[in-house]
Amino acid sequence: MYTIGIDFGTESGRAVLVDVRDGREVATAVHSYANGVIDQHLPGSSRSLPPDWALQDPMDYIEVFKHTIPAVLRQSGVKPEEVVGIATDFTACTMLPVKRDGTPLSVLPEWSNNPHAWIKLWKHHAAQPQADQINETARRMGESWLQNYGGKISSEWFFSKALQILKEAPDVYAAADRLIEAADWVIWQLTGVESRNACTAGYKAMVQNGNFPSREYFAALDPRFADVVDTKMSREFATLGANVGGLTEQAAQWTGLRPGTAVAVANVDAHVAVPAVKVTKPGTMVMIMGTSTCHMIIDSDQQTVEGMCGVVRDGIIPGYYGYEAGQSGVGDIFAWFVNNAVPPEYHEAAQAAGMDLHQYLETEAAKQKPGEHGLIALDWWNGNRSTLVDADLTGLLVGATLATRAPEIYRALIESTAYGTRTIIESFEGRGIPVNELVAAGGLPEKNKLLVQIYADVTGKPMKLAGSGQSPALGSAMHAAVAAGVYPDIHAAAEKMGKIKDEVVHPIAENKAIYDQLYADYKTLYDYFGRGQNDVMKRLKKIRREARGGIEG
Amino acid sequence: MYTIGIDFGTESGRAVLVDVRDGREVATAVHSYANGVIDQHLPGSSRSLPPDWALQDPMDYIEVFKHTIPAVLRQSGVKPEEVVGIATDFTACTMLPVKRDGTPLSVLPEWSNNPHAWIKLWKHHAAQPQADQINETARRMGESWLQNYGGKISSEWFFSKALQILKEAPDVYAAADRLIEAADWVIWQLTGVESRNACTAGYKAMVQNGNFPSREYFAALDPRFADVVDTKMSREFATLGANVGGLTEQAAQWTGLRPGTAVAVANVDAHVAVPAVKVTKPGTMVMIMGTSTCHMIIDSDQQTVEGMCGVVRDGIIPGYYGYEAGQSGVGDIFAWFVNNAVPPEYHEAAQAAGMDLHQYLETEAAKQKPGEHGLIALDWWNGNRSTLVDADLTGLLVGATLATRAPEIYRALIESTAYGTRTIIESFEGRGIPVNELVAAGGLPEKNKLLVQIYADVTGKPMKLAGSGQSPALGSAMHAAVAAGVYPDIHAAAEKMGKIKDEVVHPIAENKAIYDQLYADYKTLYDYFGRGQNDVMKRLKKIRREARGGIEG
Repeated sequence: MYTIGIDFGTESGRAVLVDVRDGREVATAVHSYANGVIDQHLPGSSRSLPPDWALQDPMDYIEVFKHTIPAVLRQSGVKPEEVVGIATDFTACTMLPVKRDGTPLSVLPEWSNNPHAWIKLWKHHAAQPQADQINETARRMGESWLQNYGGKISSEWFFSKALQILKEAPDVYAAADRLIEAADWVIWQLTGVESRNACTAGYKAMVQNGNFPSREYFAALDPRFADVVDTKMSREFATLGANVGGLTEQAAQWTGLRPGTAVAVANVDAHVAVPAVKVTKPGTMVMIMGTSTCHMIIDSDQQTVEGMCGVVRDGIIPGYYGYEAGQSGVGDIFAWFVNNAVPPEYHEAAQAAGMDLHQYLETEAAKQKPGEHGLIALDWWNGNRSTLVDADLTGLLVGATLATRAPEIYRALIESTAYGTRTIIESFEGRGIPVNELVAAGGLPEKNKLLVQIYADVTGKPMKLAGSGQSPALGSAMHAAVAAGVYPDIHAAAEKMGKIKDEVVHPIAENKAIYDQLYADYKTLYDYFGRGQNDVMKRLKKIRREARGGIEG
Repeated sequence: MYTIGIDFGTESGRAVLVDVRDGREVATAVHSYANGVIDQHLPGSSRSLPPDWALQDPMDYIEVFKHTIPAVLRQSGVKPEEVVGIATDFTACTMLPVKRDGTPLSVLPEWSNNPHAWIKLWKHHAAQPQADQINETARRMGESWLQNYGGKISSEWFFSKALQILKEAPDVYAAADRLIEAADWVIWQLTGVESRNACTAGYKAMVQNGNFPSREYFAALDPRFADVVDTKMSREFATLGANVGGLTEQAAQWTGLRPGTAVAVANVDAHVAVPAVKVTKPGTMVMIMGTSTCHMIIDSDQQTVEGMCGVVRDGIIPGYYGYEAGQSGVGDIFAWFVNNAVPPEYHEAAQAAGMDLHQYLETEAAKQKPGEHGLIALDWWNGNRSTLVDADLTGLLVGATLATRAPEIYRALIESTAYGTRTIIESFEGRGIPVNELVAAGGLPEKNKLLVQIYADVTGKPMKLAGSGQSPALGSAMHAAVAAGVYPDIHAAAEKMGKIKDEVVHPIAENKAIYDQLYADYKTLYDYFGRGQNDVMKRLKKIRREARGGIEG
C-alpha cells in the first residue's frame, strides 16, 4: 500500500510516492510551474506589475498533479489501486479569489487582466499598508489575538492580502464569492469539496481556538470588510489528516489514480515536516533550515511567547498547541557573504580543492576554535522575525581587526544564527515550554556539519537531522495514510513512516562554555540594538530611504 | 642656491635637491636599506628574534648619504658649492645605544650578536611590559606630564625601549655611553657634533617645556635607571632649523658635498611636513595620511587635549606648542577591505576598466549619495589612538542587509575614518584650539578624490592638499635653508619654498547635513563601545587570546 505526498513550493511541485508500511520513498517527480513567480507582468500582458508584487497562476498547480502523479506511478510500477491516499502541502499564505464553484477569477476573461484576480503568492509584499492598518487597528481596539502572533501581523498574511484586494480592486473583491488559501483550493479541485485547513486558518488568518476576530474589528478596517468571513470564507475548519473526500472522476483522469481515492485536508510545507521527522509530542523543536529558519514546537499549554509567528490549537499536531517562530535570514546571510564578501583567493582555493565555496569556507572555519576569531555578529541582514518582529533591524559585525579573514567572518555568521536560535529557545523556555532537543530539516544542516555542531554547542541541546531529504512531501504522504485510515492518527503514522537520522550531535562542554560567554555579549548587543536603547539601525534605514528618494530596496 | 632634504623612512632613504628660491624639486634619489627591517634574525645570524622585535642597521643610513646625495648632484648637474645646506627627517622613536664617540654598539664585535645592541626601529613593539610599567608608575606617582601624552606612553617610545635594554640586557645598557635617537645620530655622523632635537625629545622622550621627568620617577622604574638622562642623554635640546655644524671631511667624502656645508638639527618625518605645506601658524590642521593618519596643529596655548599623542613646546614650529594626534588605522583599513572582503566580480571589473581595485571601488562608491548605503563603521580595525588611546578596540560595521554591496562598505569605511578625524578635531576645538581648515599630505588623499570630499563634508572644514609628493624631504630642505641662513626662520622658508595646491575642496552643505546625522550616531557608538559602557571588544580580544593559547595576533 502506498500514498502520495505532494509538496507545492515557490517554483515547482514535487510528488513522492511512499510505502505506508515504513515510509520508504519509492519514487519522486518534480514539475516546474510554467508561469513561475509572476512579478514582472501578467502572462500575455506587457503592463508591468508594481514593486513587491508576486503572483501565481492556479492552473500551474493542476499541471503538477497531471505530470507528477502519473510519473511516480510510471517510475515505481505501482498500480493505481495500490495508492490509498493523497495529500498536499503548500506555501502559505498563498491565496486567491474564486467563484462559488471554485473557478479562479484569473481564468475568467472579464477578470484575467486584473492583477488582483490572480493568486497572491506568500512573498507578495505589496499589502504592507493594509498590514499596518490591521496592526494599528488591533492595537487600538486591544484585540487579544494579536499577542498570539508576536504582536504583529505580516503583510504576507491572509487578511492583509484580502484587504488589499478590497481597497485597490473593490470590483474584484465584489466578484469573488470566496477568498481561499491555494492550499485549500487544490484540495477542492481534487475532491469537489471546499474545506479550510486548521493550520493556515490559525497561522495566517488569525483564527484562535476556532474564532476569527470580531465583526466589529473587520468593520473598523473597512465597513465593506465587516462580513468578509461570513460572505467569502467559512467558520468551519478541517482537522489535519482528516479525509476531505474522494478524488473526483476528473481528478482521477488528471492523475491516473482511482476515483474515490482518499484526499487529506490541506497543510503547510513547514508544519507538515514536523511529524515527518517523528515529532508528535512536546519537548522537541523542529527547525526547517534554508534561506530562513522556521522553528516549530508543540505543547499542551497555550502561552504567549515573545515574537513567535503564531500559536495555533491543532495547527501542527491535532490535540496540541502548535507554536511557530522564525529567523528571517539564515542561509540567505551565508549566501550574501559568499557572493559579496569573499576575495578571489578563496574562490580559487575552493576550485582547486574541488569544493563549492560554502564547503571550502566551512572546512577552513572548522579549523578555528570557538572564540578564536574574536568576532560577534547580529544575524539581522534580513531583519529579525523572532523574538523582536522587526524588519527594520540590520546586520552588525563587531571585533574585526586587520588580521580578520573571510573564513572567520563566515564562522561568526553561522554562530550568529545559532545565537539567534538560542534567543528563541530561551523565550519558549522562559514561558515554561520545554525544549529538550532540536531536530533540523532542510538543505542547510544536511550539507554543513560544522553548522550542526555549532548549533548544538551554542544552544546546549542535542541535535538530530531529518531522515528524508524531502520531509514535507513525506509528511504529506503520512497525512494521506491517516486520511485513508491506514493509521488511526498522525502519531501512529509518524512512528512507522517518519524518518530521523540515528546520529545525535551532542554539545561539546568546552565549546559550550566559551559560547556561553559569547552569547552573553550577543544578548547584550541584541537588546541594545533591538529593543530601543539605540535605534541606529532604524535611523540608518530612514536616511537610506531618504537618500534614495523614498524608494525601498 | 640649493639645499638637500633627506627623508629616512622605514625601508629606504630619499634625498631631494631643492632650489631655495622657490622650493622647486630639482632631483630625487632613493636608496633602500640593505638590511631593511630586521625582524626575523640578526644579519649573519640564524637565531630567531622574539615576536614584535623590529631592528635596523645604522650603517644602512650612512649608505643612504653615500648613494643618494651624489645621485641628486649628478642628476641635476648642481655643483657642490651651490648646495648650502643639508637636513634630515626620520622615523621616531628609532633609537640606539652608542659609545661616547658615536660608534653604535652593533658594529662592535663584542656586542654585534646581542639584539639589544642594534637600533630599535619605531615599530619595535617588544617593550610593552616596560611601557606598562612606565604608565602605571606615572599614574601612581601622579606625574603631570602624563596628561600631555593622552594619558599613555607607547611601547614605541624612547624610555620604553631604553628600559627594555636595561631590564633585558643590563650589560648592553652599561656598555652604552649614550642612548640616542637615530634622527640625532645621523646628524652626529655628518657633523661630528652630538645634538638632541626638541621634536623627538618632546614627543618621544617625555620632555615638557625643557624638562624630563624627575630622577625620582626614573628611580621608581628601576634604581639603575635613576640617572639615565644625566649619564646617557642630555638636557640640552636643539631648536628645529638650527645649524648643528658643518659637514665633516669624512661626510663630505661620502656625499660629494663641501666640508662645512650647514647641517640642520634633526627632525621627524611627519612634523617636518607641516611647514612643507606652508603651515607655520595656528588654525590649520595638517594630516599626514597613509596606512595611518598623523594629525598636527600648532597653537600659542598649551592645553590638555583628550587622547593626543603629545603636546610639545617648539616641537613642530619654534615658538608654538605643537600638538600631535593620530588614527592608528586608515589606509590600512581600506587595504584590509580590498584584500579580504571584495568578491571576484569587482576584481574583474577593475581589471576590465584598467583601474586598480581601490580606484574602481572609489569610482563605484562615488556614485552613492551620503547615507544611501545605510551603513556606519567604527574605524578601529587597528585600535583607536586618538581620542581613546586604546589598542584593544576593534572594528564594527552596522547596517548591513542582503542588498549591501562591496562599494557601499568601502565608502562606509572611508566615512568612518573621516568621522574619526572629526572626533579629533572636536576634541581640539573643545579645548579652545581652533581648527579652521585641513591640509592633507600623503599618498591617500593624493589618489582618492572621493575621500577628500568626504573628509570636507564630514568635518565641515575646507580641505587643501600638499603641493609636493615628498613633503617630508621638502620640509627638510626648508630647514636646511634656515640652518644655512638663507631664510631667517621657518616661516620665511615656508612662504617661499612650501607648496600647497591651489584647489580648495569645500564642504557641500547638503552632504554635511546628512553626515551630521550619521556622525551623531557614530559618536553614540564611539562612546558606547569606546568608553566602557560595553566592553565587548575587549572581552572578544581576551577570549580570542585564550582560544589561541595566549598568543596575540
